[in-house]
Amino acid sequence: MPKFVKRRSQKTGLPPGTLMHIGEETTTPVGIEAFFYNDAGYEERSFESFEECAQAISPEKIAWINIIGIHRPDIIEEVGKRFDLHPLLLEDVLNTEQRTKLEDYEQYIFIALKMLRYVHEELDVEHVSLVQGKTFVLSFQERHGDVFDSIRDRIRTGKGRIRKQGADFLAYALIDTIVDNYFSIMEHMSDDIEILDSAITDGNDGNTTYMLHRLNALKRELIFLRKSIWPIRDVANGFEKVDSNLISSTILPYYRDVYDHTIQVIDSLETFRDILNSMHDTYISTISNRMNEVMKVLTIISTLFMPLSFLAGLYGMNFRYMPELEWTWGYYAVLVVMCGVAGTMITFFRSKKWL
Amino acid sequence: MPKFVKRRSQKTGLPPGTLMHIGEETTTPVGIEAFFYNDAGYEERSFESFEECAQAISPEKIAWINIIGIHRPDIIEEVGKRFDLHPLLLEDVLNTEQRTKLEDYEQYIFIALKMLRYVHEELDVEHVSLVQGKTFVLSFQERHGDVFDSIRDRIRTGKGRIRKQGADFLAYALIDTIVDNYFSIMEHMSDDIEILDSAITDGNDGNTTYMLHRLNALKRELIFLRKSIWPIRDVANGFEKVDSNLISSTILPYYRDVYDHTIQVIDSLETFRDILNSMHDTYISTISNRMNEVMKVLTIISTLFMPLSFLAGLYGMNFRYMPELEWTWGYYAVLVVMCGVAGTMITFFRSKKWL
Amino acid sequence: MPKFVKRRSQKTGLPPGTLMHIGEETTTPVGIEAFFYNDAGYEERSFESFEECAQAISPEKIAWINIIGIHRPDIIEEVGKRFDLHPLLLEDVLNTEQRTKLEDYEQYIFIALKMLRYVHEELDVEHVSLVQGKTFVLSFQERHGDVFDSIRDRIRTGKGRIRKQGADFLAYALIDTIVDNYFSIMEHMSDDIEILDSAITDGNDGNTTYMLHRLNALKRELIFLRKSIWPIRDVANGFEKVDSNLISSTILPYYRDVYDHTIQVIDSLETFRDILNSMHDTYISTISNRMNEVMKVLTIISTLFMPLSFLAGLYGMNFRYMPELEWTWGYYAVLVVMCGVAGTMITFFRSKKWL
Amino acid sequence: MPKFVKRRSQKTGLPPGTLMHIGEETTTPVGIEAFFYNDAGYEERSFESFEECAQAISPEKIAWINIIGIHRPDIIEEVGKRFDLHPLLLEDVLNTEQRTKLEDYEQYIFIALKMLRYVHEELDVEHVSLVQGKTFVLSFQERHGDVFDSIRDRIRTGKGRIRKQGADFLAYALIDTIVDNYFSIMEHMSDDIEILDSAITDGNDGNTTYMLHRLNALKRELIFLRKSIWPIRDVANGFEKVDSNLISSTILPYYRDVYDHTIQVIDSLETFRDILNSMHDTYISTISNRMNEVMKVLTIISTLFMPLSFLAGLYGMNFRYMPELEWTWGYYAVLVVMCGVAGTMITFFRSKKWL
Amino acid sequence: MPKFVKRRSQKTGLPPGTLMHIGEETTTPVGIEAFFYNDAGYEERSFESFEECAQAISPEKIAWINIIGIHRPDIIEEVGKRFDLHPLLLEDVLNTEQRTKLEDYEQYIFIALKMLRYVHEELDVEHVSLVQGKTFVLSFQERHGDVFDSIRDRIRTGKGRIRKQGADFLAYALIDTIVDNYFSIMEHMSDDIEILDSAITDGNDGNTTYMLHRLNALKRELIFLRKSIWPIRDVANGFEKVDSNLISSTILPYYRDVYDHTIQVIDSLETFRDILNSMHDTYISTISNRMNEVMKVLTIISTLFMPLSFLAGLYGMNFRYMPELEWTWGYYAVLVVMCGVAGTMITFFRSKKWL
Repeated sequence: MPKFVKRRSQKTGLPPGTLMHIGEETTTPVGIEAFFYNDAGYEERSFESFEECAQAISPEKIAWINIIGIHRPDIIEEVGKRFDLHPLLLEDVLNTEQRTKLEDYEQYIFIALKMLRYVHEELDVEHVSLVQGKTFVLSFQERHGDVFDSIRDRIRTGKGRIRKQGADFLAYALIDTIVDNYFSIMEHMSDDIEILDSAITDGNDGNTTYMLHRLNALKRELIFLRKSIWPIRDVANGFEKVDSNLISSTILPYYRDVYDHTIQVIDSLETFRDILNSMHDTYISTISNRMNEVMKVLTIISTLFMPLSFLAGLYGMNFRYMPELEWTWGYYAVLVVMCGVAGTMITFFRSKKWL
Repeated sequence: MPKFVKRRSQKTGLPPGTLMHIGEETTTPVGIEAFFYNDAGYEERSFESFEECAQAISPEKIAWINIIGIHRPDIIEEVGKRFDLHPLLLEDVLNTEQRTKLEDYEQYIFIALKMLRYVHEELDVEHVSLVQGKTFVLSFQERHGDVFDSIRDRIRTGKGRIRKQGADFLAYALIDTIVDNYFSIMEHMSDDIEILDSAITDGNDGNTTYMLHRLNALKRELIFLRKSIWPIRDVANGFEKVDSNLISSTILPYYRDVYDHTIQVIDSLETFRDILNSMHDTYISTISNRMNEVMKVLTIISTLFMPLSFLAGLYGMNFRYMPELEWTWGYYAVLVVMCGVAGTMITFFRSKKWL
Repeated sequence: MPKFVKRRSQKTGLPPGTLMHIGEETTTPVGIEAFFYNDAGYEERSFESFEECAQAISPEKIAWINIIGIHRPDIIEEVGKRFDLHPLLLEDVLNTEQRTKLEDYEQYIFIALKMLRYVHEELDVEHVSLVQGKTFVLSFQERHGDVFDSIRDRIRTGKGRIRKQGADFLAYALIDTIVDNYFSIMEHMSDDIEILDSAITDGNDGNTTYMLHRLNALKRELIFLRKSIWPIRDVANGFEKVDSNLISSTILPYYRDVYDHTIQVIDSLETFRDILNSMHDTYISTISNRMNEVMKVLTIISTLFMPLSFLAGLYGMNFRYMPELEWTWGYYAVLVVMCGVAGTMITFFRSKKWL
Repeated sequence: MPKFVKRRSQKTGLPPGTLMHIGEETTTPVGIEAFFYNDAGYEERSFESFEECAQAISPEKIAWINIIGIHRPDIIEEVGKRFDLHPLLLEDVLNTEQRTKLEDYEQYIFIALKMLRYVHEELDVEHVSLVQGKTFVLSFQERHGDVFDSIRDRIRTGKGRIRKQGADFLAYALIDTIVDNYFSIMEHMSDDIEILDSAITDGNDGNTTYMLHRLNALKRELIFLRKSIWPIRDVANGFEKVDSNLISSTILPYYRDVYDHTIQVIDSLETFRDILNSMHDTYISTISNRMNEVMKVLTIISTLFMPLSFLAGLYGMNFRYMPELEWTWGYYAVLVVMCGVAGTMITFFRSKKWL
Repeated sequence: MPKFVKRRSQKTGLPPGTLMHIGEETTTPVGIEAFFYNDAGYEERSFESFEECAQAISPEKIAWINIIGIHRPDIIEEVGKRFDLHPLLLEDVLNTEQRTKLEDYEQYIFIALKMLRYVHEELDVEHVSLVQGKTFVLSFQERHGDVFDSIRDRIRTGKGRIRKQGADFLAYALIDTIVDNYFSIMEHMSDDIEILDSAITDGNDGNTTYMLHRLNALKRELIFLRKSIWPIRDVANGFEKVDSNLISSTILPYYRDVYDHTIQVIDSLETFRDILNSMHDTYISTISNRMNEVMKVLTIISTLFMPLSFLAGLYGMNFRYMPELEWTWGYYAVLVVMCGVAGTMITFFRSKKWL
């Protein structure tokens, strides 16, 4: 699980627009990968420096420039200068703690979101920023490896409509892919919940402390996912309100579809939360119920044997004058009394439904 | 109970509008059943392929085409081409995870909802899509068997106004029937809750673990029903806002009635939730209360017999010089002391209201 | 307490507007009572059939026709025909499960609400429907006996303004009386809560299981009342929005007053809920606290006597060579040791604040 | 604590506008105190009957007429006639259960609110109604004694702007004083919470039952205060929306200030609620934790002494052939075994962190 | 932790606009520090009295006047007179309990907020008020020491755009710095939560009472932070709605950025709350689970040894005629029986999964 809050405070007091990377330190070089395409063809290139890349841009082709690694403010600044991006936007690109949001800067639209993937069974959260202009889409991601391979394939093969459409469709496709991936997160979580649930229902819950920590971990993960996923609703919804020639009207039904998916994901999140809460309640009740059963056994044992032991102790006393001890049938009489006491008690327990 | 989340993630990365069935696999052939009717008469037919069906459509008659089985994207695509349906709409038809919604595509209105039935005492959830055009209604359902038989009868017999009205009335009738059926789900749930409730109130709750799982199962079912039923409110409400010549104004009071019913169902759901929560609380308190009673019995037994046993043990010691042992009335004196101790204790318990 | 959900599902699949009574079966004949009045005088009549009643209506007089018993759809239909009422409205009249609501049908206003009364200390819920036209008010109720006697008296005696005003004032007076009666429900509930509360606070809570079921029953009743009473707010508020010549502007302050009362009732309901929740929490804590006290007594007894009994058992062993047994003062020494052990323990308990 | 609901139901069925006092019975005579003032001077008078008072009103002076005691509907009716007040308004004046509200009757503004004071350490709630006209303010209160002395002083001394301003400023000053007084209620409550909190935190919580009832009482008081204070927000806010020449625009910033204060009070109420809930949780956990500790002691004692006592009992048996009993070192061997068992157990407890 | 409510009630009854300091008493002299700057240069001065300061103001330069210490109403009044500030505004400056808010007084904008800092590991809350006019910003703070040093540096060095911009940018910079500082509060809290969380998860929770109070303290701190930070959202959002020439349109993106940050802080607060609640639940369950384990050990010990001790006691009785005692192998037979009983019991426990 990622840390709750990243070290953002180091930026406090700096002038607004000061570029500083907020996130985990890394030394891997920044990768710049670009697609230039139109209906006729496509070009896929990888650059050493952004300067080279900038020169490769041509107005006839849609350019998708993917910058991998946001730990070098100087490179981000260079990109910002080339595309005339607002300094506050660049700040948001660099801040991996940035909340999911959509901002309309007339010349371009800025979208910040979270890319969630499972990498080696670990939830991996990456801050992704998109800048969509008239003929270009800039995408910034933290690390190598992403969920965009299917889009790359579609550009390469010309499958679907992506090559025939503008930058707005590309931006949509990237966002749609990120949101679609949330479904696999949901399924993963659903599996985890079901495993835990069937363990609780079947009573095979083994180590209780372990179960409680599993439940807690799932709750924690859910809190985290809610925080990451909820705001995307406003982004998907926001596109319908953007009154800009950057987004053609034919794209709107697609964004309505994305919005629909986010609602579905959020519905699942809420359902998971309700289910986890109900599971927690049930589990606690089960534990408390077991304790009740244990208590009953303890009480029955004590209640049965304490009076019997007392009787035994009574006739174990060494008084000189205890007439019962001299009786021939004294021992057997005591055994009979003991059986009577035990029988009465068992009847009592039966009436109390403890047996 | 259906699984929490179906395998939707396999679609991730495919171009938007790619048709793929999301839901349980099945190999039963797709059935196409159609009614063509107007005030004068009706025709009821069943087709092998959609092509035949398409030829049977005539502009003078209202056509209700019911496609049973949505696991063959090719057939759905064929339907889509004939009626010029948007690819995203067809995607939603195929996705059994699709949330209940209403969408207005000018030429036709698309409605997705959940058909809930009890089949062999099992809650059966089916994804139903409706497309209402000027003179046709398409309905897509997952499996054979549905709640529409009464509508079929009304078309056949010409009872009520259905034959005199247009496609908008037919679409209303289908939605109304689905919503009306929710009431039987509510009644079934109500019965389940009442059985559990009276078991708890009467104390005939038998196996506690079983009761807790029953409560949990009902809560879970409620969470699931809430997720399925809540969004229908927006659909019923949405018809009033649809500004389209597809819906005549005389239909609006009927949709207001449907809206009214959905509110009533949702009210019941909320009431059930409150009642289940209060039942859970009461049950937990009852369990905890029983434990309290058990504890009191245990304490009373221990408190009574521990001092008495100690006294017995004391005079069971083998010291050579214990003057009490030699006393003639020593044994009787000890018995009197024991009765006194027991009496004092019982008085103490009475004062504490433990007896 | 009424059942959670009544058998509404039998209507499923019938054409909309099909009249069918939903509610408890009854065979008592339907009563038709009518008042015809104006400033000059009044006539109070009781009819065998609605036909007679219909003939008695005159345009110069305000007519209040009260139909008692809604289990005969044929009579309701007859009424509907005479006053040209919408079939969906008639359906709502017959459905005792109908939610409280206000609907404006231009020619008349339809109001459905719940009449709550205590009959023989039992909460009695009746479905009441009102149809207010220009010169008439129709009221439909389930059973004989209602809260309208004061209005009948006012019509008879000409007290207040009721005879000088139109049908809108009569409709207001009926609604106002129903809402005013909610206050007595609130007071009854308030008394119940206070009795339970003082029992808990004073510790005279006697049988715990009984108390828990009392608390649960009150919570349940509250859930039911909330469901019945909440929607009346929208009705009272709705009159201000009705833009109709059926309601004269001088009536509006009166409806504002009704709205005010509903808010007050709802406020009380919310307060009751908070109080009941807080009572439940306190009661649970009290039970758990008592258990704590019982545990302490148990622990003290065990802790005191277990070591002492062990010592007694030790010197009850029959070993041939146990030098202490031969000592002259051995017995007394053991008694001293026992006192020392007991004293140390009591000091320990004091330090732990268990005594 | 005041009763939850006062006897309002006796009014049920009476015609609207029927004046009847709802509240505690009292026989003290009704007091009428009046201030007549303008910039030039002031007159302070006390009247026996309202008739005299009415004659003393002059159009050149602002009149503040304070009626103390609302249990005489005849007097209220007389006032109503003189100032031409709506009968529903007079009803609200007489109803001590009336919710806080603001109503604009064109010729005058009606405000109902709750005056909260601590009298002899008891929370005293009084229903206060204000009617503000162009040149007069009527105030109705239940009992002698109020929070308005500072305003009386300001009128007498001419301090501040009150004498230079109109009736709207006087009404504002009265409301402001009532709201300002809520702060002292908050402080009183804050003190109570802090005392309880430090008792819980320091563990000096003495009698648990008493603590629980203190917590419960505070929660109850909070529920009551929330009910009384929340609606004042709408009143303070309502003045900005009143479009009337009764309120001059220079007064609006003052009402904004009052609104600000009510928000502050409500913020405190919410904070108190959160704190009380968190205190309750912590206290319950603490109790449960103590029980845990008690259980551990009990378990340790039992676990230590039960095996030892068993061993002692074993060698207390009277079998003729028990070779150990004859051994010379048998007794000492048993003592060594006992020490070994005890030592092993203590080691086990240490490993479980119970010691 | 600051007190819940400060002594505000002493102001009750005073005329509105009466200046009185509400907050902790202090005797430190009031400091007046000012910056006068424009693009060309800056002047930094410290004044003994506000009179001197007022003379130093020139219309060509932006003036930032920082008044440190608000316990001298006379000085605040002097400032108010010079800048023509509304008396109610001055009241809010003096009231350290004032809620965060934004008010637009046409000639100037008033902002009240809370400056949160950690001073010596203690959360320090300071009431800060800002008044932004066309060419001046007044800032009022309670004590020496603030978070504005970075802004002072930026003015001195001319770094960033602050010297080139107007008073609106300065006001923004001050607010931004205060909000940015909330992030360090969040990080501090996050660290505290993580330490507690890992202690609970690892089971190294040592003293339970201490842990509970830590949890409670964090919850309390969170309640307090929520109260302080939530309203800032409305302030940041309010600037977009201020329709004033005091705020140039180029500033708006910056305020949008501030709004973004407040949302992020609030998100963190909500996440913390969810996490703390889930931690509390888990911890309680863990405690209850441990008790369960302790109970099991107790039950096993009792259940094993009570029957064995009873058997030992039985043959410790002194009856003259007990044939078993005479048997040669009686002792060994009893030992075998005892082993059998113990074995049976252990098997039973195994089947119950208690071992």
